[in-house]
Amino acid sequence: MSLFVQKYGGTSVGSIERIEGVADRVASFRAQGHDLVVVLSAMSGETNRLIGLAQQIQETPDPREMDVLVSTGEQVTIALLSMALKKRGIDARSYTGGQVRILTDNSHTKARIQAIDDANMRADLAAGRVVVVAGFQGVDEHGNITTLGRGGSDTTGVALAAALKADECQIYTDVDGVYTTDPRVVERARRLDKITFEEMLEMASLGSKVLQIRSVEFAGKYNVPLRVLSSFKEGQGTLITLDEENNTMEQPIVSGIAFNRDEAKVTVAGIPDTPGVAAKILAPVGAANIEVDVIVQNVSADNTTDLTFTVNKGDMKKAVGVLESVGKDLGAREIRSDDKVAKVSIVGVGMRSHAGVASRMFTALAADGINIQMITTSEIKISVIIEERFLELAVRTLHTAFGLDAEPTESHTKG
Amino acid sequence: MSLFVQKYGGTSVGSIERIEGVADRVASFRAQGHDLVVVLSAMSGETNRLIGLAQQIQETPDPREMDVLVSTGEQVTIALLSMALKKRGIDARSYTGGQVRILTDNSHTKARIQAIDDANMRADLAAGRVVVVAGFQGVDEHGNITTLGRGGSDTTGVALAAALKADECQIYTDVDGVYTTDPRVVERARRLDKITFEEMLEMASLGSKVLQIRSVEFAGKYNVPLRVLSSFKEGQGTLITLDEENNTMEQPIVSGIAFNRDEAKVTVAGIPDTPGVAAKILAPVGAANIEVDVIVQNVSADNTTDLTFTVNKGDMKKAVGVLESVGKDLGAREIRSDDKVAKVSIVGVGMRSHAGVASRMFTALAADGINIQMITTSEIKISVIIEERFLELAVRTLHTAFGLDAEPTESHTKG
Repeated sequence: MSLFVQKYGGTSVGSIERIEGVADRVASFRAQGHDLVVVLSAMSGETNRLIGLAQQIQETPDPREMDVLVSTGEQVTIALLSMALKKRGIDARSYTGGQVRILTDNSHTKARIQAIDDANMRADLAAGRVVVVAGFQGVDEHGNITTLGRGGSDTTGVALAAALKADECQIYTDVDGVYTTDPRVVERARRLDKITFEEMLEMASLGSKVLQIRSVEFAGKYNVPLRVLSSFKEGQGTLITLDEENNTMEQPIVSGIAFNRDEAKVTVAGIPDTPGVAAKILAPVGAANIEVDVIVQNVSADNTTDLTFTVNKGDMKKAVGVLESVGKDLGAREIRSDDKVAKVSIVGVGMRSHAGVASRMFTALAADGINIQMITTSEIKISVIIEERFLELAVRTLHTAFGLDAEPTESHTKG
Repeated sequence: MSLFVQKYGGTSVGSIERIEGVADRVASFRAQGHDLVVVLSAMSGETNRLIGLAQQIQETPDPREMDVLVSTGEQVTIALLSMALKKRGIDARSYTGGQVRILTDNSHTKARIQAIDDANMRADLAAGRVVVVAGFQGVDEHGNITTLGRGGSDTTGVALAAALKADECQIYTDVDGVYTTDPRVVERARRLDKITFEEMLEMASLGSKVLQIRSVEFAGKYNVPLRVLSSFKEGQGTLITLDEENNTMEQPIVSGIAFNRDEAKVTVAGIPDTPGVAAKILAPVGAANIEVDVIVQNVSADNTTDLTFTVNKGDMKKAVGVLESVGKDLGAREIRSDDKVAKVSIVGVGMRSHAGVASRMFTALAADGINIQMITTSEIKISVIIEERFLELAVRTLHTAFGLDAEPTESHTKG
């Protein structure tokens, strides 16, 4: 007898047949006696259809009206699921963001949740009803409709789970959990039973697009156990929770290998090694709306230094252009760029307490003849920039080196 | 400098191009200095699409959720029009029924408006904004979304005009006004510049489906001048107002000829002429959800009488079935039915003060050899049931007899 918040994404409610499937799943949880709050996305493709209508009018339409428009997508699915539940004899009631009331700030198209009124939901749960809530949307203090931005339904799910102190927030999606790395690259990638919020944040920001990153931050902040599961096949999925210190002994050193192909490297070489020089280089890049990922500056032998950073491949030329006059002003020797690079990272809370993780990583890469161009580290992550053509090899090598490979499906006796 | 409430139907906002057209029209009214509240329907076809989705789940889905679902249709168009107005530099703000707040009872899918909060709209108008309101929808006192039933956007328009004491409620549609009769039947049918609420009610209920009948009742009750115009061509349309007594002299006796092809006649013959007999016959018909239109009972020579009524053609067999045992109980001689009939009516407030209108009508029909099977009259209407094959002939004959024919487009000198 638990209270679960279940969030189903656009693919999971992409047709009437699939909505009926969600209703069946909800019915089976109800049959087990659980209380349920269900958060839904719009049918897959619907949000893009609505944006397409708006963009026939104007490329950047009024943001307030954009929210009025796109919030209809979830309103459709909550009504349809509630109907499907009622057909099964399950009492259910739909709520728009405004009806719940999910109060947000007034930053249309990217609003942040400020408070959730749980009174109506609690009354419905107490009356034995399934509560069906539109994800991705809220209202500001004046009753204007707001939306939380792309993927915001995950955030709605976590926020409702936090407000209701739910036992678990379950995110149903089209993958069956979080993997040690991308199974398309490493055949023996394993689904993780458990991962910490911190690890998930590093994995998500590095390209494992299973969960919206804001929802993971939110879940971590309010300690909401978060589970990623498949809408389409049975299984336990992956549970994302706090790092419980006393379990560290049993934790693997590295939980997963993340990577990002979409990196390009820009080096400003031979600049004076004086305070403020990095800011002088990066400020105009940021001002040009170019996102910078890895930044590395090394100590110098003479009075000059090199600063290297990475950007999305598509932004590289723009970044170099922006830096030309800045480089001249600083007396830089040259500006070099390279878009044939990629980033590979090992992630794991276990590395905090284990020395030698970095050297094990570098040794494994060296054994395959992979040269490391840049290195950055955080408490639970080590990232390297390498030549792009070595990416798959590096991921596979590291996956094996850190003991992440799944047992072969057909087990063999070992010598 | 007037305040107009303008309502645009589904065809008028059926595509982005047409929404841009509405924005142009609104812009031209703004340029003339008028204040505007615009009420919109859903894009044509959208409400049916949404109902279709629901009916894939269940034939009669939960009515509360049905309202959540279909109300998204208008929410889409109000957002799109507001964007299109902003693109033109016109400040505009959209409102759902709940945001206005249009308070209704809780009869989902056929709710009635109880009160309208005009505070937000007045503030926006005072600030020079165009207010864009979703038609067809409201909220009950608990914040549940309700809808007013098919054609309810007209009612929203009139209700807002009444609440705001607007100078005129303008209904933009795909016809350019109310005609003396259906132009497809009578080539020389004329658009009326003016018609009274009462006449319009009789015309509408008799098949001139220009306006939703509830909105005309509402407009009459609150004395809101109502104008029907075309979204697609310029013109003054038809103004629907109170009957101003002192104008009666100048009014035509008959304003229009209405007709209804979808009538079938059922006669219960030879029943005892005692009190309560009509009720005994009509009660089971009503209980079977069959709508009865004309009812005629004649005085009898002996102790028996005949009761005749009309129903929609599709309901005739059902009505006869329902009456078989009732007829037996009452000792009726026989039950006869005929679905080859039609109804023709002349409508006009002028006939109140003119004797001889009926005889002029019957004489004109007789001159064409058209036999009258039933007659009913009201203060401003005379209806006859005739053989269906004479319908067009009867309408043309009466249109001419009451002086409604338009001048030929090419004028000839008269002798």
